[in-house]
Amino acid sequence: MDQFEVKVFIRLRPSVLDPAGEAIKSASSKLGVAGIKSLRIGKLIEVKIESNEEDIKEKIELLCDRLFANTVIEDYEYSINKL
Amino acid sequence: MDQFEVKVFIRLRPSVLDPAGEAIKSASSKLGVAGIKSLRIGKLIEVKIESNEEDIKEKIELLCDRLFANTVIEDYEYSINKL
Repeated sequence: MDQFEVKVFIRLRPSVLDPAGEAIKSASSKLGVAGIKSLRIGKLIEVKIESNEEDIKEKIELLCDRLFANTVIEDYEYSINKL
Repeated sequence: MDQFEVKVFIRLRPSVLDPAGEAIKSASSKLGVAGIKSLRIGKLIEVKIESNEEDIKEKIELLCDRLFANTVIEDYEYSINKL
């Protein structure tokens, strides 16, 4: 069994509106920061997990697909680091 | 003026409880994925911005401090890529 540190990045699909992101974008210009072309809010899930090296990818795929992301509206990406 | 792609990672401070993360952690074990030692949920904010190279860091710091993160309970980290 090894220890892994996994970072999962979850983003709204490009076709899905992000009203919270739009709100922050317009607040940014009120704060005096101009020039923002796009701003999207996603999620970052950081997991420390003990697993066999051969299973880790499958486990993370399962978690992402079934639990972390809503794959109808979100895409995910992850990086796995062995500790 | 250059174009930059900025990724901001916002995490709850280690001392702050993350009940949503705990809920996902316990759901993971019900899904049959054992071995999770910790699971924390943060935010990922992706910004495309037009700016002078000398101002970009200051702008991003301002946005993070005042808008993106609640610095009482959250820490932030960012990476800036020139496009």
